[in-house]
Amino acid sequence: MLERLEALAGHSEQPDGLTRVYLSAEQRVVSALVSEWMRAAGMSVRLDAAGNVVGRYEGARPGLPCLMLGSHLDTVRNAGKYDGMLGVVSAIECVHAIAGKERAAGRRLPFALEVVGFADEEGVRFGVTLLGSRAVAGTFDPKALQAKDGDGVTLAKAMRGFGLDPARVGGAARRRDEVLAYAELHIEQGPVLEAEGLPVGVVTAINGFSRMTVAIGGTAGHAGTVPMAMRRDALAAAAECVLAAERVGASEPELVATVGRMEALPGAINVIPGEARFTVDVRAPSDEQRARALARIEAEFDAIRARRGVSLAIERLQDFGVTACAPWLMAQMDRAIAAEGVRVRRLPSGAGHDGMAIQAIADIVMLFVRCEKGISHNPVEAITPADAETGTRVLLRFIEDFRPEQR
Amino acid sequence: MLERLEALAGHSEQPDGLTRVYLSAEQRVVSALVSEWMRAAGMSVRLDAAGNVVGRYEGARPGLPCLMLGSHLDTVRNAGKYDGMLGVVSAIECVHAIAGKERAAGRRLPFALEVVGFADEEGVRFGVTLLGSRAVAGTFDPKALQAKDGDGVTLAKAMRGFGLDPARVGGAARRRDEVLAYAELHIEQGPVLEAEGLPVGVVTAINGFSRMTVAIGGTAGHAGTVPMAMRRDALAAAAECVLAAERVGASEPELVATVGRMEALPGAINVIPGEARFTVDVRAPSDEQRARALARIEAEFDAIRARRGVSLAIERLQDFGVTACAPWLMAQMDRAIAAEGVRVRRLPSGAGHDGMAIQAIADIVMLFVRCEKGISHNPVEAITPADAETGTRVLLRFIEDFRPEQR
Repeated sequence: MLERLEALAGHSEQPDGLTRVYLSAEQRVVSALVSEWMRAAGMSVRLDAAGNVVGRYEGARPGLPCLMLGSHLDTVRNAGKYDGMLGVVSAIECVHAIAGKERAAGRRLPFALEVVGFADEEGVRFGVTLLGSRAVAGTFDPKALQAKDGDGVTLAKAMRGFGLDPARVGGAARRRDEVLAYAELHIEQGPVLEAEGLPVGVVTAINGFSRMTVAIGGTAGHAGTVPMAMRRDALAAAAECVLAAERVGASEPELVATVGRMEALPGAINVIPGEARFTVDVRAPSDEQRARALARIEAEFDAIRARRGVSLAIERLQDFGVTACAPWLMAQMDRAIAAEGVRVRRLPSGAGHDGMAIQAIADIVMLFVRCEKGISHNPVEAITPADAETGTRVLLRFIEDFRPEQR
Repeated sequence: MLERLEALAGHSEQPDGLTRVYLSAEQRVVSALVSEWMRAAGMSVRLDAAGNVVGRYEGARPGLPCLMLGSHLDTVRNAGKYDGMLGVVSAIECVHAIAGKERAAGRRLPFALEVVGFADEEGVRFGVTLLGSRAVAGTFDPKALQAKDGDGVTLAKAMRGFGLDPARVGGAARRRDEVLAYAELHIEQGPVLEAEGLPVGVVTAINGFSRMTVAIGGTAGHAGTVPMAMRRDALAAAAECVLAAERVGASEPELVATVGRMEALPGAINVIPGEARFTVDVRAPSDEQRARALARIEAEFDAIRARRGVSLAIERLQDFGVTACAPWLMAQMDRAIAAEGVRVRRLPSGAGHDGMAIQAIADIVMLFVRCEKGISHNPVEAITPADAETGTRVLLRFIEDFRPEQR
């Protein structure tokens, strides 16, 4: 598994550091690699209409509903090697182990297994997350096809360039009766399991998030000739907004607010910025708390706008409510953890995951694996081989002992 | 003249708006256009070793020292049509008028005229200004050859790509005994002349400036999982710096401070910025005031660094002291203005100009032309045809009545 993670990390748009975005040349290579590993594990493999890699291992008879496993294959910019990829690689490993045992014993599970390598979870390229998993869930919004990347290329155009037909993304959608449940193994990306000395934990819910882009319009001017009192400096206004968002984020426990992108235009050393654009990402463990924080942030931005005489345009990109994991699945995951001799710990997820999309068609559960210092979205992201093994053993046991919900 | 300014404005790296940087394809075209206009005005023309266009009109006998005229042909990003170009076009017009009169009268001035279209004044591409005029002044710093543009191309490489030899930039340098004086017509880029209802004014001095790039290093992390209290957000620290620079700039009359560029890395919506880079430009009418402001800004930045636990690296790019215009030249320009029936107004320049470099080899004088609302470095930059004509008439009279300093 660790060798495979290293192999995946080698396919990046830059030579030093890992960046792999949706519909890139690197995604194509990685999809081929993962497809090979899936085939070697006994699965049939297809690339779906959104570019997700889908491996299927049949159950007792062909066409049974599946237990869906997986995670994502795209990364943030200058990413770690485990966020996403570990969930795909460990799921393939579990299918491989099951297929080996079944060949020896001559029996099959009473359900199919599918492993999905989602093509877009992070949303780095087009500023919209979960494009891959939303296509699978049938909740892909065709408006997203007009979203543009940093070079002005639309998602629709990028899909065609990759060999996909944007008019047929709907074909990736799965029906509720095809999927018994969705289970994802993922690194924690936070400090809780490390602090408690535990290799794994069960996720109770994924925090909700809201994202927006903000554009501030001032007046560009010569940096040497416009007196300070006559300026309408868009970047100075944006700087106040950054600090306002930070202040609101820090004002309540478990609430976070982040400005991840910032651009000043025209962007010359000797020109007062006439325009500034930035993003805001707000997350909270309750939808009420998040709504309250958003209202405060927008009110603060508006006060800055009024005081500085600039214009302010806020575009809400995405709002995702809290996603609860299913109690019946958490109970089965608890049992798998306990059976491996590990104390059961349940914890929320501060990060978003593909399960937020997949919940539209199936109940979900997540298994977190401890990561070093809780650092993620960073090249120093790290896990131990022992924890990767424990996580995979728990996932394998969960799959082998899986009982569909009695509906 | 206005038609020629329109023609120049048509050569831009983007279709909407004007951006023309050093050693670009657009510079090549514009150099060819200006060369043609110079030849039509009776000048011999060459491209010097730094890419400046140099037109020469001989005096009573070949090889006499010259009165140097000119301005720059490069622009900021999304620039106006007059900053720089008006000075080149009006100087060519003056030579054209003089050549016509001299052909009719069969006499020549007792000095040569040269018109220089400087290839780089704004410094947009390599972050270092006055590259063209410093080459002419013999003060081009070979270290600048290693400066890189936004794509990582060094100045040396860009020069070779343009057909210039970076090892021979020194060949553009002019000797002090070749240049009697330097006179430049330029738009004011400030509000003084408009406020007083005057079409032109004489510049007393060019304010000094200092420029730096600042890099802040924090810790990149997941925007959903790292608690606010555990963050070392480089962009939030940079935002505080922007506001500190603004505060210092506004603390004394005539002092200005500007952050024109800002970048957050890795620059993803869901990643806490681990690095932020920005520029600071500080200008003042006295060198003491500027030094005091820089010390305060750097102290504030350092306090932000210490409080937030980030790293701070300040690189000083350029420091230019105040450039005084020569009293004997200002007196001659005063007389030319009065002779055109305009009240004489002297004023300082908040913007930098090529004369800052040329002063190393010759006394300088500048004639400012009123611009609308004092707006410059902006597509709405505007002048009236009447003011362009008045300015050119004053410059023509200044040239025709020019008497070298008795040394």
